[in-house]
Amino acid sequence: MTELHGVFPYLVSPIDDDGRVKAEVLARLVEHLIAAGVHGLTPLGSTGEFAYLSFEQKRRIVEVTALTAAGRVPVVAGVAATTTADAVRQALEWRRLGCAGVLAILEAYFPVPDDGVVAYFGAIADAVDDGADWPIVLYTNPQFQRSDLSLAAIERLAGKHRNIRYLKDASTNTGRLLSIMSRVPDLGIFSASAHIPACVMLIGGRGWMAGPACLIPRQSVRLYELCRAQRWAEAMALQRELWWLNQLFAKHALAACIKGGLELQGYAVGAPLPPQGALDAAGRAELQAVLASLEAL
Amino acid sequence: MTELHGVFPYLVSPIDDDGRVKAEVLARLVEHLIAAGVHGLTPLGSTGEFAYLSFEQKRRIVEVTALTAAGRVPVVAGVAATTTADAVRQALEWRRLGCAGVLAILEAYFPVPDDGVVAYFGAIADAVDDGADWPIVLYTNPQFQRSDLSLAAIERLAGKHRNIRYLKDASTNTGRLLSIMSRVPDLGIFSASAHIPACVMLIGGRGWMAGPACLIPRQSVRLYELCRAQRWAEAMALQRELWWLNQLFAKHALAACIKGGLELQGYAVGAPLPPQGALDAAGRAELQAVLASLEAL
Amino acid sequence: MTELHGVFPYLVSPIDDDGRVKAEVLARLVEHLIAAGVHGLTPLGSTGEFAYLSFEQKRRIVEVTALTAAGRVPVVAGVAATTTADAVRQALEWRRLGCAGVLAILEAYFPVPDDGVVAYFGAIADAVDDGADWPIVLYTNPQFQRSDLSLAAIERLAGKHRNIRYLKDASTNTGRLLSIMSRVPDLGIFSASAHIPACVMLIGGRGWMAGPACLIPRQSVRLYELCRAQRWAEAMALQRELWWLNQLFAKHALAACIKGGLELQGYAVGAPLPPQGALDAAGRAELQAVLASLEAL
Amino acid sequence: MTELHGVFPYLVSPIDDDGRVKAEVLARLVEHLIAAGVHGLTPLGSTGEFAYLSFEQKRRIVEVTALTAAGRVPVVAGVAATTTADAVRQALEWRRLGCAGVLAILEAYFPVPDDGVVAYFGAIADAVDDGADWPIVLYTNPQFQRSDLSLAAIERLAGKHRNIRYLKDASTNTGRLLSIMSRVPDLGIFSASAHIPACVMLIGGRGWMAGPACLIPRQSVRLYELCRAQRWAEAMALQRELWWLNQLFAKHALAACIKGGLELQGYAVGAPLPPQGALDAAGRAELQAVLASLEAL
Repeated sequence: MTELHGVFPYLVSPIDDDGRVKAEVLARLVEHLIAAGVHGLTPLGSTGEFAYLSFEQKRRIVEVTALTAAGRVPVVAGVAATTTADAVRQALEWRRLGCAGVLAILEAYFPVPDDGVVAYFGAIADAVDDGADWPIVLYTNPQFQRSDLSLAAIERLAGKHRNIRYLKDASTNTGRLLSIMSRVPDLGIFSASAHIPACVMLIGGRGWMAGPACLIPRQSVRLYELCRAQRWAEAMALQRELWWLNQLFAKHALAACIKGGLELQGYAVGAPLPPQGALDAAGRAELQAVLASLEAL
Repeated sequence: MTELHGVFPYLVSPIDDDGRVKAEVLARLVEHLIAAGVHGLTPLGSTGEFAYLSFEQKRRIVEVTALTAAGRVPVVAGVAATTTADAVRQALEWRRLGCAGVLAILEAYFPVPDDGVVAYFGAIADAVDDGADWPIVLYTNPQFQRSDLSLAAIERLAGKHRNIRYLKDASTNTGRLLSIMSRVPDLGIFSASAHIPACVMLIGGRGWMAGPACLIPRQSVRLYELCRAQRWAEAMALQRELWWLNQLFAKHALAACIKGGLELQGYAVGAPLPPQGALDAAGRAELQAVLASLEAL
Repeated sequence: MTELHGVFPYLVSPIDDDGRVKAEVLARLVEHLIAAGVHGLTPLGSTGEFAYLSFEQKRRIVEVTALTAAGRVPVVAGVAATTTADAVRQALEWRRLGCAGVLAILEAYFPVPDDGVVAYFGAIADAVDDGADWPIVLYTNPQFQRSDLSLAAIERLAGKHRNIRYLKDASTNTGRLLSIMSRVPDLGIFSASAHIPACVMLIGGRGWMAGPACLIPRQSVRLYELCRAQRWAEAMALQRELWWLNQLFAKHALAACIKGGLELQGYAVGAPLPPQGALDAAGRAELQAVLASLEAL
Repeated sequence: MTELHGVFPYLVSPIDDDGRVKAEVLARLVEHLIAAGVHGLTPLGSTGEFAYLSFEQKRRIVEVTALTAAGRVPVVAGVAATTTADAVRQALEWRRLGCAGVLAILEAYFPVPDDGVVAYFGAIADAVDDGADWPIVLYTNPQFQRSDLSLAAIERLAGKHRNIRYLKDASTNTGRLLSIMSRVPDLGIFSASAHIPACVMLIGGRGWMAGPACLIPRQSVRLYELCRAQRWAEAMALQRELWWLNQLFAKHALAACIKGGLELQGYAVGAPLPPQGALDAAGRAELQAVLASLEAL
């Protein structure tokens, strides 16, 4: 059974002015991250601008990522849709393209009651369940999504679908993670950039899926290893340094910040898709200073 | 110059189980509404589930609506996207299909600052500006959208693009409409279902674009005429009756409510796209009672 | 039976540096407002800084207002508390001091469920019910209060306590007022400054209780009379002018704005109690311009 | 210099039906908590219903607590007001009554800009600064307060007033605590019940000020000692058990929950002041089960 754990950088989506995926840049980034020791890759998360891409653009990003990774690390790609039909279509296609699992996201314009939330994620799980093990990571994000996952919905989903085995929580509420762990102990929990990774590891997390790990993959892996070894004093010393980067992400737009940082590191990933703005000069200067202090330039 | 005014029903989007637009049902609904005297038609508003449809589905809905209307009333279709490129593509295509103008909507996952908001709507206006008059209606909806239109952004847009001539406000804040009128007097204001149409007409509105008018087109036109004639006592007597319907819309999900009502009236428009739910039995009973009292069954 | 109607200025609370009520200034303001034709007076509303005053300060303000008004117009003073016991104490004392009724407000730190809300207002109504007619105005303000009045709670209260005969709504949602009127037709509705008074009158309101009427009492009374006479075109012409003042109130802090305006008109009411700030120079300039244009300086 | 650290139970405020403080019950609770090894006591926090008490009731609670503690542990009482004058009055009186410091809280009806926030807390600090060391704990609670403390305001306050030496954060955002620590390293940070105490200790916290510690003082002290000894595996094992209690607090009203639990433990503290409700039967049963599992009955 595939056990997901460790550091999964949230990949950005490099798109050129004509709307084409910049495959070469993306492949180079994937190689770089794998070389740095990351445990997996997650294209099409929030940082990957899933809400701004067409199906074709998404498909191509997953394809390039999976082909480049070539099984060296698991690729867990984002499935994000407002309709069940679109979500199922993505999940099936991402599996066909070689992903090891999916990160399942519910977009919504109108609020969705719990029954609809459960139906949506359940339909994805059923569609990909051919008897094989193929993990689904639930994604819950109260900040940007209109229909968050209640604890009751999480319990219902985890109890019923054997492939729903993980959850990534993008709230800032770390206590909520401990509550989920206490009520649904079989669910593996991943942190997002708004939580302190060392804290999530302390309470029993499996790792983190987050944008900052794109910029500091080596340092993130080191932090993970210290936490796994329960060397908490060293972990916290490193965590304190790395947290300066998370503070920048909370301050600037996520995609703009990671794309801006990758540009500083020599990856021509471009800016977020308009009308989203690029990282401004002040933000770039702040980011440059923090990355330099972390020896990430 | 095309002057938009009066009652624009927000059309629903009838889609079958295979994802195909039910063209015959939609065409029949369009005929019915035109026969009832409505002043225009708006496919792809919130009630039209714009956030749940693919480009192809949207295109087909606009096509069927425009072909059926055949110029008898203006069709002002919704343009809704997270990216500028997608919005421009929709606007150009809707014009080619014969729309008289568009209702422009900014979808967003991450918040967009005013400059981005202005850039988005400005790009749509520029793309369709070939020297001809082709009105753009700005849509502002603080409830369901992450980046609402500030008064400052509205002023900037209206001052710069000659085709940005109208605004539809879907807040519940009627005073905000009077503030916009006082600061941008050349902008024509349309009400949404959350405002009391008679009040918006009293303060100088041009009409309303709203879901309920799909179910009570004749009654809505009558209300509009009474307001135009400044027969306020009669207008309010009618408004009071019609408001029961708006109260139901505020209580139930918009698309589910209108689709459920149209089914009761004999239009097989189906349910909203899953995981959105259909109107439940209790809601249907409430709706039936109100429609019966308004002689709309 | 006392029927409340018309324009009730929300009085400010002039307090000197030692915390004493400036009785002379308050009395002069009361005389001025009565001379301008207002239909009633409301001390201790939001604009009256009820949340910043001790019981003794409140008591003195009610006393000065009631003594000065001397029955010429009804004084409907604010009762605001977090506990039922404190609210009842205020209501009994305000009655003893000669008020014609109270505006009842629930303050809360923790959210209060509907049963608690109903118990609170019900206890006030019971405490003052000695068989005589003594109207209670419910106050609902979703913006600044943690426990707003649901429609269900309003229905329960109005159905059970004969003195609960009015409601003042400080939301911006004018449609909500029409919904309340349709469901609880016996309740008289007063507007707040966030609604357009002419609209609230059109749909059947009794008048308004609001801060701006402190600064433009004569103009407010004129607007009320035009609405009562159903001269809507003239009413809207005047309403449009007066709305500039409401726009300023929405922009600046309420108490600071009214106190600043009264200072400009020659009433030394001082600034709001610290740490609330006084109206700044830019705000004062804006206010001066608007008051001048309304011939209110 | 007084260094605050460890477990500070948030005391409840036992009040009888006539509004009198139940001094005997409160004193017995204080004795019990001190015997259990708590490091300090905090009357008049949120759980202490500060927003529902008169100055006289507050004064009496502080007096009884300080007299009973008699210097065995520091008493850090809540100062909470909407006006600067009231806050200063409380702080001076609590010092006179023997408190070792205060927990300073800004209540607000209208939002307060940062300058006002800084002025309020600064005025308290200045008022009690007679050259002696007398610590002030800033309290920040985005959930129940209208004017939260921004990081910029915290930096300004900590940099300027030598007695502003601690902060208690009642958000659920644990990452925010690490951000504050990184930017204002001299400020000692206390956790609230919404954070996981073990996590806050891991990142460098001084302890916690929270309601649950009233019910499980011995277990809380044990958790604190394990954290201080960096025995994280044991700490987390205990933390997991205790977290069931925090989950109940998040579900029920704070004051109702603690008062209900103390009643189960034999302290006749009564119910929260009306219109707040008492813990209902289902809540009491849940609480009883959790307290029994923690050997706290």
